[in-house]
Amino acid sequence: MALVNDNYLKLQAGYLFPEIGRRVGAFTEKNPDAPIIKLGIGDVTEPIVPAVLDAIRRGVDEMGDRGTFRGYGPERGYGFLIDAIIEHDFGARGVTVAPDEVFVSDGSKCDSGNIQEIFALDNVMAVVDPVYPVYVDTNVMAGRSGAIDDKGYYAGFVYLPSTEDNGFSPAPPTAKADVAYLCSPNNPTGTVFSRADLEAWVGWARENGSVIIYDAAYESFITDDSLPHSIYEIEGARECAIEMRSYSKRAGFTGLRCGYTVVPKELQGTTPDGEKVSFNSLWNRRHSTKFNGASYPIQCGAAAVYTGEGKQQTDAQVAFYLENARLLREGLAKSGFTVFGGVHAPYIWLKTRDGQSSWDFFNTMLDKCHVVGTPGSGFGPSGEGYFRLSAFNSRDNVNTAIERIAKAFG
Amino acid sequence: MALVNDNYLKLQAGYLFPEIGRRVGAFTEKNPDAPIIKLGIGDVTEPIVPAVLDAIRRGVDEMGDRGTFRGYGPERGYGFLIDAIIEHDFGARGVTVAPDEVFVSDGSKCDSGNIQEIFALDNVMAVVDPVYPVYVDTNVMAGRSGAIDDKGYYAGFVYLPSTEDNGFSPAPPTAKADVAYLCSPNNPTGTVFSRADLEAWVGWARENGSVIIYDAAYESFITDDSLPHSIYEIEGARECAIEMRSYSKRAGFTGLRCGYTVVPKELQGTTPDGEKVSFNSLWNRRHSTKFNGASYPIQCGAAAVYTGEGKQQTDAQVAFYLENARLLREGLAKSGFTVFGGVHAPYIWLKTRDGQSSWDFFNTMLDKCHVVGTPGSGFGPSGEGYFRLSAFNSRDNVNTAIERIAKAFG
Repeated sequence: MALVNDNYLKLQAGYLFPEIGRRVGAFTEKNPDAPIIKLGIGDVTEPIVPAVLDAIRRGVDEMGDRGTFRGYGPERGYGFLIDAIIEHDFGARGVTVAPDEVFVSDGSKCDSGNIQEIFALDNVMAVVDPVYPVYVDTNVMAGRSGAIDDKGYYAGFVYLPSTEDNGFSPAPPTAKADVAYLCSPNNPTGTVFSRADLEAWVGWARENGSVIIYDAAYESFITDDSLPHSIYEIEGARECAIEMRSYSKRAGFTGLRCGYTVVPKELQGTTPDGEKVSFNSLWNRRHSTKFNGASYPIQCGAAAVYTGEGKQQTDAQVAFYLENARLLREGLAKSGFTVFGGVHAPYIWLKTRDGQSSWDFFNTMLDKCHVVGTPGSGFGPSGEGYFRLSAFNSRDNVNTAIERIAKAFG
Repeated sequence: MALVNDNYLKLQAGYLFPEIGRRVGAFTEKNPDAPIIKLGIGDVTEPIVPAVLDAIRRGVDEMGDRGTFRGYGPERGYGFLIDAIIEHDFGARGVTVAPDEVFVSDGSKCDSGNIQEIFALDNVMAVVDPVYPVYVDTNVMAGRSGAIDDKGYYAGFVYLPSTEDNGFSPAPPTAKADVAYLCSPNNPTGTVFSRADLEAWVGWARENGSVIIYDAAYESFITDDSLPHSIYEIEGARECAIEMRSYSKRAGFTGLRCGYTVVPKELQGTTPDGEKVSFNSLWNRRHSTKFNGASYPIQCGAAAVYTGEGKQQTDAQVAFYLENARLLREGLAKSGFTVFGGVHAPYIWLKTRDGQSSWDFFNTMLDKCHVVGTPGSGFGPSGEGYFRLSAFNSRDNVNTAIERIAKAFG
């Protein structure tokens, strides 16, 4: 008799974004003419830039010609993309990464969901709170947690509250934790780790033999060159950290699908017998057994992000979103809101007004301003009383949203 | 201290195809001028057909225009593709499938590797032997097996030998098995299930509350219309079967990446407490938490497979490969080989000569004919003494391979 993986039954009923979708759907059914502006889900709105588009077109053309057609590619990604990644994302910042340490994938959501598979089930996982829900949910599904409590905490995980008091940059845990998920620039708070923050984390991980899963999907939004862009800029990080990057926000690939993960060969874990095993070899096995490479034309597009034109055009797009973020920050502040983030990230993290809950504020924003944001509590209990707005929209929509918010709250 | 998932250490050292790659690499290093013909890995060689290519191009163009740009798509796939699947792959054969039962993915290898995640770890998994290695390996990695024995069998799995005696179509197990992986047309033996075979399997599954994972990646190679193309053509299959399809072999998508899985809403599993749970809801959760949709332009291309032109052009491509298969079958038979498969499948399954082992025969074929095939033993112990040749190549290469084999063995 087939048994279900009943760890899934521990999950909360709705993933955050489907729930937002349901509420917006109900609202528009009642108010079909309300001009809704969506600053909720962190999805890009600008089209793919010409340099990248041309490269994808060339890749598609090659697939239509017997002489240049490509079937199965290397599961780890094409050399032309891996070489560009190594040179531009790491070499340019003084970091050395080897080709067999880079694993190209169909996106960071998949990688950050799949990475836990190479860890034993009895590791204790630490997550910042609030946090990107995929880290928590995939560990619940794998069976690393107990039940969820009334506050929204799963038994068995170590939660690190990310609050105004600690500048949304929690210190490493004092409780035992074997694996920690970090995200910088952070989703949802929009904050970024300083070099000192990351040094503390790397020190903690090395001291405890723990592993940091470092999600740098928003790396391209870092505007201060003195801030670390990669965790490998910190000495010793190659022995304790896995890093993930994405083309989704940097180059608008949310609908095209491409990202990558770096697993250094120095990174080792332990078997129950105390034997040391390379996580690189485990991830290589996982990647080549359960995945079959990212789409070839899309990899061509990703590589074009690193060309002169591609870099210029995608940088301009990131700058456009960052200007949206600045306008939102300043507009919200003028309307009397306390705001965080939005400097090195496309996300604004704002405090709700008058002690409203995140979901109540969601309803208020939808009703009064027809603006859709994301309730902070959806990212974890410490997000309660906060609200995430994304800078991914047209300038007109951002300005209109600010005006409506000023009118309703200012 | 981070612990590794030490189930990975139970896996045999090399995945089959990397090992082939290593041997071919060593051979070409010694014999740089040997004109090698690759009939090993089941990778297509014909380019993407014009109708599909045009649709991908239109999808790419849309991504370059703000008005038509698409970001995150529905994780389960775009409606235009799901509707086409339902109409052409199922409706045309009298099978009813609902839109929320279809899950578009980046390919069948991923789906067939990931599907085990929604089952409890203590299910007993049954596999045909020889078998597509992904079914076995992903269950080992998840922890459903013990160690591998000298013969190549993992403790804890139920193996169903697929032999000449049973026409490479093993009967359902008499031992307890909760989940069974079936593949028809079969990889590697090239055989296909008859209606009676499938009825026996569906009967077994329903009687035991077991689930059949039905991999129909090679469905388009079925040349006899009276054979079932979908397991859902068998009464009661919606209560016991998951079906997977791929565009890889049907339309040359091995490098583009698209496939889909059907999980009927009637299909239920059981919790340890005896509660019934829908596998559709579990797979939906898995799919939306650990995956973020297939690339939009690629989904446009997949949908074009179902247009009049797309169908005609991809059918012609499948017919071309099937003619290769016929030539290989007949050529090998003329050279005195005993051959199976290759009628409803792109794979020829041949017996080695003079009791040679599969790997010895691999070396002989490489040395004498410069032809690369796949050792049958790489698919499981019962594949020992067999060899798989694929029909995916140019007509010239297929004819040359047959000539060389006739010269060496005829």
